[in-house]
Amino acid sequence: MDSGEFRRHGHSLVEWIADYLEHSDRYPVLSRVAPGDLTRALPSHAPERPEPFDGVMDDFERLIVPALTHWNHPGFFGYFATSSSPPAVLAEFLAAALNQNAMLWRTSPAATELESVTLAWLRELMGLPSGFEGVIYDTASTSTLHALAAAREAAVSGVREKGLPGRAGVGTLRVYCSDQAHSSVDKSVILLGLGHEGLCRVPSDNEFRMSAPALRDAIARDRATGVTPVAVVATLGTTSTTSVDPVGEIADICEREGVRLHADGAYAGVAAIIPEIRPRFAGRERADSIVVNPHKWLFVPVDLSACYTRRMDVLRGAFSLVPEYLRTAEGTAGVRNLMDTGVQLGRRFRALKLWMVLRAYGAAGLRATLEEHMRLARLFAGWVDAEPSFERLAPVPFSVACFRAVPAAVPVPELDAFNERLLEAVNASGDVLLSHTRLNGVLTLRLAVGQLRTAEAHVARAWELLRENAARLAGK
Amino acid sequence: MDSGEFRRHGHSLVEWIADYLEHSDRYPVLSRVAPGDLTRALPSHAPERPEPFDGVMDDFERLIVPALTHWNHPGFFGYFATSSSPPAVLAEFLAAALNQNAMLWRTSPAATELESVTLAWLRELMGLPSGFEGVIYDTASTSTLHALAAAREAAVSGVREKGLPGRAGVGTLRVYCSDQAHSSVDKSVILLGLGHEGLCRVPSDNEFRMSAPALRDAIARDRATGVTPVAVVATLGTTSTTSVDPVGEIADICEREGVRLHADGAYAGVAAIIPEIRPRFAGRERADSIVVNPHKWLFVPVDLSACYTRRMDVLRGAFSLVPEYLRTAEGTAGVRNLMDTGVQLGRRFRALKLWMVLRAYGAAGLRATLEEHMRLARLFAGWVDAEPSFERLAPVPFSVACFRAVPAAVPVPELDAFNERLLEAVNASGDVLLSHTRLNGVLTLRLAVGQLRTAEAHVARAWELLRENAARLAGK
Repeated sequence: MDSGEFRRHGHSLVEWIADYLEHSDRYPVLSRVAPGDLTRALPSHAPERPEPFDGVMDDFERLIVPALTHWNHPGFFGYFATSSSPPAVLAEFLAAALNQNAMLWRTSPAATELESVTLAWLRELMGLPSGFEGVIYDTASTSTLHALAAAREAAVSGVREKGLPGRAGVGTLRVYCSDQAHSSVDKSVILLGLGHEGLCRVPSDNEFRMSAPALRDAIARDRATGVTPVAVVATLGTTSTTSVDPVGEIADICEREGVRLHADGAYAGVAAIIPEIRPRFAGRERADSIVVNPHKWLFVPVDLSACYTRRMDVLRGAFSLVPEYLRTAEGTAGVRNLMDTGVQLGRRFRALKLWMVLRAYGAAGLRATLEEHMRLARLFAGWVDAEPSFERLAPVPFSVACFRAVPAAVPVPELDAFNERLLEAVNASGDVLLSHTRLNGVLTLRLAVGQLRTAEAHVARAWELLRENAARLAGK
Repeated sequence: MDSGEFRRHGHSLVEWIADYLEHSDRYPVLSRVAPGDLTRALPSHAPERPEPFDGVMDDFERLIVPALTHWNHPGFFGYFATSSSPPAVLAEFLAAALNQNAMLWRTSPAATELESVTLAWLRELMGLPSGFEGVIYDTASTSTLHALAAAREAAVSGVREKGLPGRAGVGTLRVYCSDQAHSSVDKSVILLGLGHEGLCRVPSDNEFRMSAPALRDAIARDRATGVTPVAVVATLGTTSTTSVDPVGEIADICEREGVRLHADGAYAGVAAIIPEIRPRFAGRERADSIVVNPHKWLFVPVDLSACYTRRMDVLRGAFSLVPEYLRTAEGTAGVRNLMDTGVQLGRRFRALKLWMVLRAYGAAGLRATLEEHMRLARLFAGWVDAEPSFERLAPVPFSVACFRAVPAAVPVPELDAFNERLLEAVNASGDVLLSHTRLNGVLTLRLAVGQLRTAEAHVARAWELLRENAARLAGK
């Protein structure tokens, strides 16, 4: 592809993307293809000869687009709704062209320093103390993995060198999180060699927050049987209901017990840019580390997870390893090389999109959008509360509502199956996408607001579809 | 940023990027900023109000560009030279706008199935048997981590549930690689809880290939003392010299010993798209897993690492974990959900760029480019061989040459310091960037060809700079 072709295709892509970002709601949110459809439509072999890019773009429109589930659709209310904002899309375009690999300072001073600068900006916006130093990873799964690896390093003397197996004096190691915590905690514990049994899921209270007394008891029981507590993961905004664990009380326990505390604020953590929200997270400043995901609720495309820690030295101690071919004068002089605080050596220029988003929207613009998302979720919750054939199943602290249909005509034992059918029917509309969870054993529908262009009309449409389909299905 | 602004800035970015991709050689390859320069030039706080994007782009040009080290410069000969090709840049632009998160099939049928299709295309192009199934990770570090996690799962019964500490019958676990293998193997072993002592670095021969007899002896010694061998990592194209371990002989040993074999072809593995290269990798088809990085030598921007395994079931067994909120009908019906074979839940739409590159260049185009890169490296090696004041320090099997200056005027004990100064002087030119390694204790310069626009003139310029600066420095 020569420069002229690049310009031609680039300009038409700008038009395509501008149109997409403005009108993604012309597509069904949830893809309507069946498993295997796309695979069957594509050739089984790579082409031998170069193909004209016009043909590639035709296939993109004809085959790939129908197989997309449109995360960037204002009717996307599933999982955690995310957004790829226009300035961030432009930043990713630039980042792809620059192809920085910020493993060492010298291989990208720009990506290395812009990461520190933008993470310091975000830290300050969230009201986190300056003792927290940040590093960008791809996902919260990776952030939590690194935080727990640092905790293991702190808890088990010599683990980096000597490992875990066959170590005299190293018995079962335990990490604690609530029964509402994200599955990435499970995966981290498994990967780190603690075993899935090395994770204790502490019960939560009736508002889905970790019970601090239950945590205290679990640690005490473990200590009594020779188990070593390694870390507690407190969640600021759980995946199912966005409940917030009592991080202050948990921090008290962790400090008393000498156990490290990691706070998983992947979704809700960024809401701390609104000062009025911060008291809900009181105690987070006592955590050893905290993860927030700008790619969830701060309008940058996947992936960008920000991990802050008060003990970057421990993280560095766990991972720093400098082979000769990566030795540099700057590294020897103490300049930060990002490879030293991560498993991955290669690193994209992720800070660029965060920088452009923070500048293009400004702190005030971001606060206003988050506040509007929370207003929409509360509005929806109000509709649910006012409608006898629906019930709300959890508080709505941020932008996610948990609820289900409870039509009088449907017997209680059939409500789960009924709500599954309802979810399927609503999603089949193409106008909205909701997802589900299970709370206290009950199948629960979730409406998660987070897309930049989601307006009251989209939430109203979701509510209309839910009521219409519930009435229709219950009437059968 | 409204649609009109997006269009305006998008179109001017297309022009900027087209110009950059064509003329990146107008910049010094290695950034000339000093540590802290960029940080000091940027504000200490995020802006409160939105800022016009024109100002952001001005700052980009004025502050960020000078702090870039230009990986996409044809004079980039450091580390492994990589390229962000025009079709891949366009693909990343699209991917950012679509913001797919392919954790589940239903959250992106397109990203899920295009990943399988393009990895099958690439597998076939490389001549790997169809028994190998692929998955895309961000980096080779992550690929190797997953491969070794699967090996741990296979070697230690119940490790997923019970972990490593305090397990009766689980003694020291060992992974083997050559003394030339990449540092990601060390980081994986540490992370997995085997401890750095759980890695045995097997000596290599005089051409930097793992010594199979030494591997056999190391395993025998370990077995004799109750150590459990877990896996061997064979490298196809080591980081320092691109040497290829005798993977067939290693596979013999692994099969005999019942130890898993992972092949790290992060850089050179893709060269197997050239049929004449494949015999050098004979035996790789007996590995349990093999990683190749299209973001290294297949012209897609970071990040995209392809991990192939004959035992995706073991990988799935090590990581699959489906919380209620991620349960889907398709998953229950056996449709592949990519989250099941990885630690990270969030996944970008990485396959799009690989698809566009494979189509835009065709297999023939990619082969021709790799062949030209290897020709350029051999050409350079020939110049080194013919010049008495330089010496070559390793064979040149692919596109990397290892060498140093040995001017008669410089005493042997001073050669390391001399070559460090030479490297610094050459890199200060701004025309080229080379990096270094250490071979048999000797400081070694590396010239790595891999940038799409690198032509003979760029290699000749590197050679000219090396000779001129060596003569100047030796004359002092």
